[in-house]
Amino acid sequence: MNLPEILLLGPGPSPVPPEVLSAQAAPLLGHLDPAFLSLMEGIQADLRTALATANPLTLPISGTGSAGMEACLVNLVEHGDRVVIGVNGVFGKRMAEIGRRAGGEVVEVEVPFGRPLDLEEMQHAIDDGPTRIVGFVHAETSTGVLQPLDDLLGRIKEAGALSVVDCVTSFCGAPIQLDALGIDCLYSGTQKCLSVPPGLAPVSFGPRAMAKVAERASPCPSWYLDLSLLGSYWGSERVYHHTAPIAALYGLATGLGLVLAEGLEARWQRHTKIGNAFWQGLTALGLEPAVEAGLRTPMLTSIRVPDGVDELNVRKRLRDVYQIEIGGGLGEWKGRVWRVGLMGHGARMSSVVRVLSALADALNVEGKSVSASEAIAEAERAFGD
Amino acid sequence: MNLPEILLLGPGPSPVPPEVLSAQAAPLLGHLDPAFLSLMEGIQADLRTALATANPLTLPISGTGSAGMEACLVNLVEHGDRVVIGVNGVFGKRMAEIGRRAGGEVVEVEVPFGRPLDLEEMQHAIDDGPTRIVGFVHAETSTGVLQPLDDLLGRIKEAGALSVVDCVTSFCGAPIQLDALGIDCLYSGTQKCLSVPPGLAPVSFGPRAMAKVAERASPCPSWYLDLSLLGSYWGSERVYHHTAPIAALYGLATGLGLVLAEGLEARWQRHTKIGNAFWQGLTALGLEPAVEAGLRTPMLTSIRVPDGVDELNVRKRLRDVYQIEIGGGLGEWKGRVWRVGLMGHGARMSSVVRVLSALADALNVEGKSVSASEAIAEAERAFGD
Repeated sequence: MNLPEILLLGPGPSPVPPEVLSAQAAPLLGHLDPAFLSLMEGIQADLRTALATANPLTLPISGTGSAGMEACLVNLVEHGDRVVIGVNGVFGKRMAEIGRRAGGEVVEVEVPFGRPLDLEEMQHAIDDGPTRIVGFVHAETSTGVLQPLDDLLGRIKEAGALSVVDCVTSFCGAPIQLDALGIDCLYSGTQKCLSVPPGLAPVSFGPRAMAKVAERASPCPSWYLDLSLLGSYWGSERVYHHTAPIAALYGLATGLGLVLAEGLEARWQRHTKIGNAFWQGLTALGLEPAVEAGLRTPMLTSIRVPDGVDELNVRKRLRDVYQIEIGGGLGEWKGRVWRVGLMGHGARMSSVVRVLSALADALNVEGKSVSASEAIAEAERAFGD
Repeated sequence: MNLPEILLLGPGPSPVPPEVLSAQAAPLLGHLDPAFLSLMEGIQADLRTALATANPLTLPISGTGSAGMEACLVNLVEHGDRVVIGVNGVFGKRMAEIGRRAGGEVVEVEVPFGRPLDLEEMQHAIDDGPTRIVGFVHAETSTGVLQPLDDLLGRIKEAGALSVVDCVTSFCGAPIQLDALGIDCLYSGTQKCLSVPPGLAPVSFGPRAMAKVAERASPCPSWYLDLSLLGSYWGSERVYHHTAPIAALYGLATGLGLVLAEGLEARWQRHTKIGNAFWQGLTALGLEPAVEAGLRTPMLTSIRVPDGVDELNVRKRLRDVYQIEIGGGLGEWKGRVWRVGLMGHGARMSSVVRVLSALADALNVEGKSVSASEAIAEAERAFGD
């Protein structure tokens, strides 16, 4: 392997701290070794702390964030269940698709990319039948919209439905008080604000979600993702299910340790502050976030591609000349936005400075006339405030 | 993390070479970075070489070996398909369970633990209806039986059914000539004779299996494991599906490189030779393999626990005094056998010597009177032949 060193400022994976990288290189223990079982317990305890939950069933699924999404839906949805999914980007669409494959009668409540869900439309769809499950995305990775949680979760609870929340991009970067909010079921990924390589998907199931799993008439269609089997392996019984991805779990344990050592509040604030600084710099470059302030995630910003600028050329220049990865648009925003992630270990002023100055250069190559130093000065001013 | 260093001689994971461990600590690339896409292509090419196949759809599933099992079955099995599964251990049972959850009409053809499948019984079950899929395990990890492939695969083909073969424990340790044998669908894991940490599951689908996937009336019930979507991500289109487990794939690329540098023939012979040497040492200790010679896998040996010996005490002594992990029995062999794996990086004389001498000490503690040095001498004699 002879790999270039790239600063990862796309929609994920984010840069991984050296402590996590080297933890993944530790010699393996057996997956049923007592020392490894202790490490698993530590991971569960740290996940509960990071999510502010007491849910016993809080564990990392042995797959990527999408496996976490699938795990939540295939365990909760039974054939014919009415499932309402809020769709304001690619990942809401994916929830709907997985819900249908799981046998659900899925109702999609769609709004345009860049908008948060419409609460009245959601309410209407939820009330329009005996709705069992309502899914939506907290931080839409395809747009960078941060969905306000309180009101929507309250309506779902009031309707007697179960909430499933995608926290892939928000976990460890924005507040998620699972128990206080009354979220029934949540999944995340490791490669965003947690800054651990992709490959694991933390999930948490609350008591009402567990009750639905326990009352299933037919077994979960997936054996690999069956929560009742996973719970027996991760629980005190330690019933062998599959061989856990040991090296990846070393990385997760270390990454969670770093998050808790920094402190959750401090980490959330860091993301907010760095996101703000970046936005000020963007404005100075004449660039415009595609999501309005107040609805925007601090950790992931979609930027409108200005008229006359070649979207792909800019990304290629950043990658090849400056060794910086940023993302392109997905779905209906393909070719229309760049996505810049300032997540986890990458949420720092050195990233902001590097990406602003590279963007400035790329825009100048594209015929714009912008000043890197002004943009950096604006970002630094905002950061200092 | 403050982890003990344990020699992994159980049923997996096996010890991981330092090159693979350090590859996993390399800084991440983005999952759509051109350099990462090249690495993915290299992995696919090396997997094809290691399996002696030209199947385009040869790739690592982003999950453990059991996810590979599930991927093969949920893509191939449609509701109502007749599925015959040969069961001679825990992993055959698991195939049957997953086949049922996928909607198959599963017929289990069972023989006792420690026996290979009965070809006449398999033939009878296959002929007893329009059988679409026949699944079985090449090297049963719960017993250490190596199923002869040729005759059984011929019968499956003749009946017009598709074969699904579990090669989790045999891959890179025993010959698998996928195309020459005419296997339709195969899955494996990384943590056995390949000596890469658990977390990925190489699979390969041949033309007849791909045709069945393409002709499905309903989509694959799993979105995460949907071969048509995975094929578009790993294929030339590079359509984003999920974020690949990048660090784990660095490990896999490096591990496959080591296998091919050693040479497949040489690696298979090493496993045979080391397994033989170990068996000679066991005999000298008065221990008896639970599977008869000729049916036994060289990489994993089940050993009968002698009368009057506490199975668990011996394993604990090996773990705590000698820092060696061996496995206990599963299913109907729970408490009745030990399972010793000499797999991949662990298939070497130093492992044989360490485990024989530790077993000798543990047996003496249990009141037997055996000689470590005699056992080691026997193993070395067999190795030298």
